Amino acid sequence: MNYKNFPMVPRVVFGRGSFNQLNEIITPKRLNTKAPFIFLVDDVFKGKAWLTSRIPLSYDDKLLYISSEEEPKTSQVDAIVEGIILSIKERPSGIIGVGGGTIMDLAKAVSIMLTNEGTASDYQGWDLVKNPAIYHVAVPTISGTGAEVSRTTVLTGPEKKLGINSDYTPFNQVILDPELTKDIPKNQWFYTGMDCYIHCIESLNGTYLNTFSQSYGEKALDLCKEVFVNGKLTAEESQDKLMMASWHGGMSIAYSQVGVAHAMSYGLSYLLGTKHGIGNCIVFNYLEEFYPEGVKLFKDMMKRHNIDLPKGICAHLDDEHYDTMIKVALSLEPLWENAIGKDWKKTITYDRLKALYQKM
Amino acid sequence: MNYKNFPMVPRVVFGRGSFNQLNEIITPKRLNTKAPFIFLVDDVFKGKAWLTSRIPLSYDDKLLYISSEEEPKTSQVDAIVEGIILSIKERPSGIIGVGGGTIMDLAKAVSIMLTNEGTASDYQGWDLVKNPAIYHVAVPTISGTGAEVSRTTVLTGPEKKLGINSDYTPFNQVILDPELTKDIPKNQWFYTGMDCYIHCIESLNGTYLNTFSQSYGEKALDLCKEVFVNGKLTAEESQDKLMMASWHGGMSIAYSQVGVAHAMSYGLSYLLGTKHGIGNCIVFNYLEEFYPEGVKLFKDMMKRHNIDLPKGICAHLDDEHYDTMIKVALSLEPLWENAIGKDWKKTITYDRLKALYQKM
Repeated sequence: MNYKNFPMVPRVVFGRGSFNQLNEIITPKRLNTKAPFIFLVDDVFKGKAWLTSRIPLSYDDKLLYISSEEEPKTSQVDAIVEGIILSIKERPSGIIGVGGGTIMDLAKAVSIMLTNEGTASDYQGWDLVKNPAIYHVAVPTISGTGAEVSRTTVLTGPEKKLGINSDYTPFNQVILDPELTKDIPKNQWFYTGMDCYIHCIESLNGTYLNTFSQSYGEKALDLCKEVFVNGKLTAEESQDKLMMASWHGGMSIAYSQVGVAHAMSYGLSYLLGTKHGIGNCIVFNYLEEFYPEGVKLFKDMMKRHNIDLPKGICAHLDDEHYDTMIKVALSLEPLWENAIGKDWKKTITYDRLKALYQKM
Repeated sequence: MNYKNFPMVPRVVFGRGSFNQLNEIITPKRLNTKAPFIFLVDDVFKGKAWLTSRIPLSYDDKLLYISSEEEPKTSQVDAIVEGIILSIKERPSGIIGVGGGTIMDLAKAVSIMLTNEGTASDYQGWDLVKNPAIYHVAVPTISGTGAEVSRTTVLTGPEKKLGINSDYTPFNQVILDPELTKDIPKNQWFYTGMDCYIHCIESLNGTYLNTFSQSYGEKALDLCKEVFVNGKLTAEESQDKLMMASWHGGMSIAYSQVGVAHAMSYGLSYLLGTKHGIGNCIVFNYLEEFYPEGVKLFKDMMKRHNIDLPKGICAHLDDEHYDTMIKVALSLEPLWENAIGKDWKKTITYDRLKALYQKM
């Protein structure tokens, strides 16, 4: 196959309040009364009745609150899957993730691991999944990661931080209800929105780009600028547009890849547990040499929104730490090839990455 | 369901030369050796070995050349379906449409009518189809209609020109190979491209619009401008971008509708058989009162590309003819409601439409 036969999310609802349609949407997908739906819900919503009271639990359905404080791990996926298998008699009717990138990635991975043997870490890589996942649904509550539409679920495993990239990864259904993003703390809104912005810069400046991905990336970038630069939108318009930016930004990766910021941010995350959104920002802030215009506008947006990034997060690291981070970053070959070209190894050296990390 | 749960095309390939992957893509979908694939191919490609030699026929597969000189009809769908049923023993493995909007709409309708009883005209309307269609694939060879991604197939029936709008209508697979559009005659390129442009203007100026549809419509419009206004693209870039404009333009209709030009163009087409692309242009040219900026830019693009539209096509019509056209146009209530608002009947009168048609 010269060109990827890209799997798109086959069903999508968009609209303020569309979360109320969840029951109507999933009911026809219930296999039988003993095959429950499992809801993975970000635990920031614990006790938030405006959201939780609208989760339609029936029969043996289960709601699992999950912390998104840490990046999702393969061990976490394995534990959730084991818990599900031990507590119910039949294979679930579906997995519904209600949350941000972490929860959505867990929902994807759990739905895959319910039909595939072994541990989630066995499937980190490209096209290793053998059996179709069970029905899985995303209800994003924060915008920017593109996890709702991508064919990957990025997990930290025992040896690497790497996605399960497969045709079975994408959701069967996405519910885009921008109203659900109304209570996000400002910093998190910014960091996650910048995940989308950085996707776009990396995708649009990459060597893999084709017109399909370019058209999505350009639109996502335009929407990011409307939200983060122009500042003339109402709160609702801003929520709506950032949700669409995330969607198009995710689609722009179809025939493209992310780049330097993601590769280096994965290193930070693997070693220090740095969350993806803020990690991307910390790295991107020092990447003028790779993305001069993109970094300039990024700094401008930080100023507009009074964002102070943490500084000196690598100050206490020793050589062994740097080795670990740089090994993870350099292992993401497609990202470097997209960013720099086929001969990336000539210019992307251990010392160059170390010098960059030391600034952060 | 307050918001439509929109069915997206679940698989898409984009790339110059991706048509060569057709065999690899459809082979796993073959039900058995007696269940053939039926290829509906625009008869302009008859004898064009550069395209036809790449159509992968195996076992009892059939290639039917179909003229796109006329707009697709319900009777034509019924005849193709009957021919298929009479000539083969098992239900086909799939229908593959290779052509423009006419061929793609026929492919959709035939795939629906192979699993649904009665005549195609029984299903003209919204959500009347009962059973899933058989597997169907689009290979567009001209860009602009959005038929490759829409949930409708527009047919002229005994009583009306109206789409079969259903969740079973969208293709299961689309192959976007911009190279296939290289030999289009200039006028047809322009008229079909303008179908996309006019979609966008109608969608973006409509009352149904939401942020989802707006984001796709804006991107399609930007791409149309790159292709038809800026004039700085290579032939290949122009083909690539117009194919993506068509795709995004089709998606923009998800939560929107077309408007005045499409409603009136359907009237022309029903009575005179005017093809959709040129019919839209003929109508749109006189719609300044509804879309002032859109029509201004349209006239500018006509000038840039030396397009002369036919004039006086309604000159010979009598009152009965006008009655027929206006009845068809006014019957498309969602289009008028989108264009004008819920109270459209107050301002869109028989006489107003007649006066407009008389100019054409």
